Amino acid sequence: MKIDLERLEKSMDELGRVGATERGGLTRLALTDEDRRGRDLLVHWMREAGLRVTVDQMGNIFGERAGTAALPPVMMGSHADSVPTGGKYDGQLGVLCGLEAIRSLNDHKVRTRHPVTLVVFTNEEGARFQPAMIASGVMAGKIALEDAYNARDKDGLRLVDELERIGYLGSEPCVPRPLRAYLELHIEQGPFLEEEGLSVGVVEGIVAIAWSRLTIHGVQDHAGPTPMRIRHDALVAAAEVVTGVRRIARDIGGDLVTTVGNLTVHPNIVNAIPGKVTLSIDIRDPKSETLDRARPMLDALVREACEREGVRYELEHYWRMPYTPFAPEVVAAVERAAEASGGAWRRIRSGAGHDAQYMAAIAPAGMIFVPSHDGRSHCEEEFTAIADIEAGANTLFLAMLDLAGKA
Amino acid sequence: MKIDLERLEKSMDELGRVGATERGGLTRLALTDEDRRGRDLLVHWMREAGLRVTVDQMGNIFGERAGTAALPPVMMGSHADSVPTGGKYDGQLGVLCGLEAIRSLNDHKVRTRHPVTLVVFTNEEGARFQPAMIASGVMAGKIALEDAYNARDKDGLRLVDELERIGYLGSEPCVPRPLRAYLELHIEQGPFLEEEGLSVGVVEGIVAIAWSRLTIHGVQDHAGPTPMRIRHDALVAAAEVVTGVRRIARDIGGDLVTTVGNLTVHPNIVNAIPGKVTLSIDIRDPKSETLDRARPMLDALVREACEREGVRYELEHYWRMPYTPFAPEVVAAVERAAEASGGAWRRIRSGAGHDAQYMAAIAPAGMIFVPSHDGRSHCEEEFTAIADIEAGANTLFLAMLDLAGKA
Repeated sequence: MKIDLERLEKSMDELGRVGATERGGLTRLALTDEDRRGRDLLVHWMREAGLRVTVDQMGNIFGERAGTAALPPVMMGSHADSVPTGGKYDGQLGVLCGLEAIRSLNDHKVRTRHPVTLVVFTNEEGARFQPAMIASGVMAGKIALEDAYNARDKDGLRLVDELERIGYLGSEPCVPRPLRAYLELHIEQGPFLEEEGLSVGVVEGIVAIAWSRLTIHGVQDHAGPTPMRIRHDALVAAAEVVTGVRRIARDIGGDLVTTVGNLTVHPNIVNAIPGKVTLSIDIRDPKSETLDRARPMLDALVREACEREGVRYELEHYWRMPYTPFAPEVVAAVERAAEASGGAWRRIRSGAGHDAQYMAAIAPAGMIFVPSHDGRSHCEEEFTAIADIEAGANTLFLAMLDLAGKA
Repeated sequence: MKIDLERLEKSMDELGRVGATERGGLTRLALTDEDRRGRDLLVHWMREAGLRVTVDQMGNIFGERAGTAALPPVMMGSHADSVPTGGKYDGQLGVLCGLEAIRSLNDHKVRTRHPVTLVVFTNEEGARFQPAMIASGVMAGKIALEDAYNARDKDGLRLVDELERIGYLGSEPCVPRPLRAYLELHIEQGPFLEEEGLSVGVVEGIVAIAWSRLTIHGVQDHAGPTPMRIRHDALVAAAEVVTGVRRIARDIGGDLVTTVGNLTVHPNIVNAIPGKVTLSIDIRDPKSETLDRARPMLDALVREACEREGVRYELEHYWRMPYTPFAPEVVAAVERAAEASGGAWRRIRSGAGHDAQYMAAIAPAGMIFVPSHDGRSHCEEEFTAIADIEAGANTLFLAMLDLAGKA
C-alpha cells in the first residue's frame, strides 16, 4: 500500500499559496490572518476526509478517524505556522503527509484497531510568541496555560486574544491525553541526508537546547562630540559577545552549535552611541553535558566583554531542554517502515526542536526526516525533492499502520 | 543689556513638554504630530514678538524683525526636532535663545541696522529622514529639493507628504539668501567645557564627517541542524566589523571618533542564522586627511571580515563633509560677546554636524556652545545648568547685536 503522491503534491501547492512570498517562500506567522486561512483550509480537508474535528484551549486542531477498538489513538502531525520569509516545507509538510496517510487509509478502505488522529499544533516556531512549541508544551504540562495565554508578540498582542480573534480558541482541555504513539514527519533542516544521498532519516532523538537572553546597558550619547575615552557602547560589548559565542563552538567542537540570531539596538540611529542592546544566544548539542560546559564559558565571555566596555548587563538562561530520546518501539516501527518504503535511510538525530520533543514526555514518540536541499531551512530557499517526500510519506503511512494495527 | 532668563526658562519648559518622555527627555521626530505642535507654539511666540513669519518649501520657519536699513539680516536659530528618547536641549535651546534675544531687543526697544531673523530648520537630526541637516542642505544648494522631498522614513512615508500633512509645506523658495551672518547656539554634546569649568564655547569650526553604510548578505538557515562548518552568518561578520571600527579609532588615535550606531538583523529571531545585516559607520575628525587615512582601513576590515565568514557585502561611502571653518569675523564677534557676557569661555571645535555647517557655505557663520553635563546628548539625561545657559544666551544676544549694528 502506498500514499497518493499526486494528491499530496496538489495539497502542498494549495496550502503553500496561503502566505506565499514572491520569492517562493512562506510568511505565515502564528495566529495571523494567513495562519487562520491555512487552518480553515486544513479543517475543510479534514472534514472532507471524514474526520471528527475538535479544537483545544491552545488552538491545537485535532481530526480523528475512529478505530475498531476503544483504544488510545496514534497521533500524526506537526505545525502550520512559519518563520518570517521561511519555507513551504517546515511544519506544513508533516501535517500534509499525516493528512495524506489518513486519506490513503480511506482509499484502501483500511480500518485500524487504534483510532488515528491528525494534529496541527499552534505556534511551534516561536517566531511570533515565545517560547517555541508553546502549545505542545502546554499539552505536555510543561508550560502553564496562563503563561502561554499571556505570551505577547512584539506589538504587545496577547496569544489568547489572537487565538480568539482568528476563531481558534477552542474549549477542549489542552492536557495530556492517552496516545498509542505520536509520529511527526519533518524536513531535516540540516545537510546530512542530502550529503549521503539518503531519502529518509529515522530520528532517534532531539538534541539538548539552551536559550539565553542578554541585555546590555551602555551609555547613549552623541557619536560626534563624545571622545572615545568616555564611551560605554552597548554594541561594542555585544559584538564581542557575538564573536565569543562563535568561538565557544570552535573551542568545544564536535556537534555543538551556537548562534546569535536576534540582536536589537537602541536607539539604532547613525549618530548615537548605542545605549542598549538585547541579543539571544542559542546553544545546542546532542549531549546535555556539553551545554553544561558551554554555560560557564558564555557567562565568563559576557562578563569580560561588558567589563572591558564598562557597561552593565543582565544575562538570563531562560529556557532549556535536555536531550530527548524517542521511544525505542516507535523508532523501530519507523525503521521497518523506512525499509519497506524503498528509500535509502539511516538513523539520525534532530538538531532542531519539534513538538515531538514535548509529546515524547506524554507518549511513545518518533520522527521521520526528509532531506533539506543544501541543509537550508527557515528561509525561502527551503526545498525537498518530491521523490524524497514520497519515501518519507510512505514511511509515515506504514509506521502509523504498524502502530495502529490493521483491524 | 541682558536677556530675560526667567522668560527663557519658562519657554524652555513649555516647549519641552511637547513630545516629553516620562524620564525627562524628548521624542519629537521631524514632521510628526509632536513636531507640528512644537512648530505651532514657536510660530505663535514669533508672532507675539512682532515677527513676520514665513515658511519655505522645506518647512523651514523664518521670523523676521525689520532693521532700519535695507540690508541682509543676521539670522539666528537651530532646529526643533529630536532623536528618539533624546533630550530637551539639543536644537530647541538654540531656537529659544534666538527667540529670547529678539524678545530682549523688544524689551530694550533696540532697533538694529540689519534685520534680525529667527530660523527653525526642518529635520536636522536625520533620525527620521536621511541625511541629517537636510533642510539647511537644500537651502545651501548642497542637496537637491527633489531628493529631499523623496527621502522616506522607515515606514516608507515621504518627507514632502509629511510636510504637507502637518501643514508646513511652505511656498517660499528654499535657496541661498543674502545674510549678514548666521549664528547658532547649541549644546556642546561633549565633555570639554564641563571638565574645564567653562560656560561658553566659541566654536571655530566643525569636524569632518564621513558616513558609510554596509549591507552583509549571509545565508539564512536554521540555528539548530546547521553544522558550524557550513554556516555563513551575516551577524558574525558584522560583529567583526563593529569591533574593527572601534579599533580604527584606537590605531589612529588623536581626536578621531568612530561609531556603529545603527545595526539591523534579518530575520532577527532566536533560532535562525542571520541572513542579512545592515549597519552604519560614522567617522569624524577635525582633519579631513584623517578620514582619508581611516577609509582604506575600513575597506580592508570589511573585506577581510566578510571573506573570513564567506559572505557577500556592499559598502557605500554615501555622505561626507570636509572640515568646516567658521568666518573669522563672526568667531571674533562671538568671542567679544562671550567676554562681555561674563562667563568663562574658550575656543572649541564642534564634533557634531549642525545646520551652521551648511549655512557656512552661503554666509559668514559662527556658533556658540554651552556645556553638556557628563558630555551626554542624544539621550534623556541631556542637561545644561541654567547659569551656563544664561551666559550662552547673553553671548548670542550680544554677538547678534554686534553683527546687526545698533541703529
